[in-house]
Amino acid sequence: MAFEVESLRKILESIPDDNEREEAYRILYGKKCGEIAFPESIHELAKKSSFELKGYIFTAAPEELRPPRITRIGAFQNQIVLPTWDPISKQKDALFKKMTEACHLAGACGVNILCLQEAWTMPFAFCTRERLPWTEFAENAETGASTLMLRELALKHNMVIISPILERDDREVIWNTAVVISNKGQYIGKHRKNHIPRTGDFNESTYYMEGDTGHPVFETEFGKIAINICYGRHHPLNWLMFGLNGAEIVFNPSATVGSLSEPIWPIEARNAAIASSYFAVAINRVGTETFPNEFTSGDGKKAHSDFGHFYGSSYVAGPDGSRTPGLSRTKDGLLVTEVDLNLNRQTKDKWLFQMTGRYPMYAAKLTEATKPGYQPEVIKEDGK
Amino acid sequence: MAFEVESLRKILESIPDDNEREEAYRILYGKKCGEIAFPESIHELAKKSSFELKGYIFTAAPEELRPPRITRIGAFQNQIVLPTWDPISKQKDALFKKMTEACHLAGACGVNILCLQEAWTMPFAFCTRERLPWTEFAENAETGASTLMLRELALKHNMVIISPILERDDREVIWNTAVVISNKGQYIGKHRKNHIPRTGDFNESTYYMEGDTGHPVFETEFGKIAINICYGRHHPLNWLMFGLNGAEIVFNPSATVGSLSEPIWPIEARNAAIASSYFAVAINRVGTETFPNEFTSGDGKKAHSDFGHFYGSSYVAGPDGSRTPGLSRTKDGLLVTEVDLNLNRQTKDKWLFQMTGRYPMYAAKLTEATKPGYQPEVIKEDGK
Repeated sequence: MAFEVESLRKILESIPDDNEREEAYRILYGKKCGEIAFPESIHELAKKSSFELKGYIFTAAPEELRPPRITRIGAFQNQIVLPTWDPISKQKDALFKKMTEACHLAGACGVNILCLQEAWTMPFAFCTRERLPWTEFAENAETGASTLMLRELALKHNMVIISPILERDDREVIWNTAVVISNKGQYIGKHRKNHIPRTGDFNESTYYMEGDTGHPVFETEFGKIAINICYGRHHPLNWLMFGLNGAEIVFNPSATVGSLSEPIWPIEARNAAIASSYFAVAINRVGTETFPNEFTSGDGKKAHSDFGHFYGSSYVAGPDGSRTPGLSRTKDGLLVTEVDLNLNRQTKDKWLFQMTGRYPMYAAKLTEATKPGYQPEVIKEDGK
Repeated sequence: MAFEVESLRKILESIPDDNEREEAYRILYGKKCGEIAFPESIHELAKKSSFELKGYIFTAAPEELRPPRITRIGAFQNQIVLPTWDPISKQKDALFKKMTEACHLAGACGVNILCLQEAWTMPFAFCTRERLPWTEFAENAETGASTLMLRELALKHNMVIISPILERDDREVIWNTAVVISNKGQYIGKHRKNHIPRTGDFNESTYYMEGDTGHPVFETEFGKIAINICYGRHHPLNWLMFGLNGAEIVFNPSATVGSLSEPIWPIEARNAAIASSYFAVAINRVGTETFPNEFTSGDGKKAHSDFGHFYGSSYVAGPDGSRTPGLSRTKDGLLVTEVDLNLNRQTKDKWLFQMTGRYPMYAAKLTEATKPGYQPEVIKEDGK
């Protein structure tokens, strides 16, 4: 693996002047989050699994008529465990074991809603364009092994779990799907990825089509949540619809590599949190995955067998424009973020983006603009 | 004035490790822009007016059937010149003089399209809620003094100029408007601010209503341009519509202060450039403006007579996720950015955001979601 720096935050710590360093943090991260002080026993638990553990706090102003609505969000990022050429069942077992440890750690940290990374049960093999053996990782959303395992862990830890997997439905159609499991251990429902990439080594359109489940918001005991899976983060309308349906926290489980997307990673989920006045949780996998057969992706690169570096850097962005620092670029980790969901409405009342949004105008304009034969509004210099 | 750091970029320069500093730049700014080497005579010209001058270059890959489409974009940020209690005509004259110098400098730098800051002819008095004397700064968009002056400068320098002013129309209605003047010195048209803020000291809804000019794109000799005025940058649909109408460069002339918006300033215009695959040019005014009468803004702050610090930091973001460093947080300045507009279509072909955008689905959904009585898509746990 090429040299990879640990995190942007670590680099910023080396700014020598105290005032300048604090000012850089303010400009880059907004209002400073508090930090959760976990007991030493929990740090030990994290260390046993070699998981980085970070905890941050977003506060809101007290209100007279509403009590605070405190929720602890967990975001877990990880590398795969075994080589991609090992038997499928062994690879799955190893990932199931790691995710069990992640759930136990999240439970010990008091996490209320935990989201795992995109397609967590498998390597991100969608670069290869080979169907077998990779589609063997696909499971039924409601009755598959990962859902059954996580239902138990959700019940045990009284924790909502979002489980992004490769789904095979009853008609043998494959989907990129997030399963939502309640803190009572019940399957609540699922959401299928709305936007499918065909860029770089992300040859996912070979595996699954655009999702057909709309923009559902899942009403849980700990808040209204939605999932914008991976490439959907590039589409502001996707983020917007989850907001219009009432989402208070939108998770963005992803798998993306440094050469393609790293400079835009801090921008998109955060912009969505600002524009829709909700919390956005960006989760990216970690490490470099190598596959048995070489592949190319029509981008002029030589045939290769690795996907490049998944750079982690998972973070939470608040409605007020502030954000947590990112997790490591290189290590497995759990990011615990305690939020007061009252901050969403307080931010709406401060900025009034929803009130000033002129949505009916845009609904009409977008309807016109997407009809064949639409004439764009173009103004030319007189006489031209 | 409170202590204000010069710029984030200056702070980052103090990171001691060379590799780490470069890696911080890569994560924060994306692919490194080249720098324009202006002759010493031009630096002297800038210095004479106490203008910071920076020049950056975005390149694109060569194509076989299209020549490069090189355009030099100018973004000018500035403080007001005289105190706000001086005679209106003197204040205007001083600003007209500064803007003349800015145009001469931009012309000398080979700028093809220059955009000035929001309401550049006046202090940003919309905090005060007093109509007089501030509405005396308003002008007719087509025949006002600022348009007449800039038409001459545009012709002289063969330069398109975007001139954001306070407009008074023939019915005596006030608007926040950007006038577009061609490089032949002709008035091409105007655009009125689509979204009006009511937040912090931005009490602009006392002065003008939401714009009625849609989302026009102005076809100039140097590219198709549009203007998203100030608070419109918080609205992803505003950015989107300019893109759907074919904009290649969208300017965001703004006036915004540190305490309210600084951490979100680097996010929104850049997110728009990424999502719509065009160049976005974010321009903010500079300095602290103090007004004769105290004012309050319903945010619990004591009556005060200044607007806080306008933090400059103007920048250009490319479709590929890269951006220039920002201009100074404290000084007048001209940012010259040479771009190859071919990068827009190349980025579209790489990322396919337009192809994967599913706009007709969103047009239908947005139409539904904005009807009274819309039932959001909410999924609850069984039995609840």
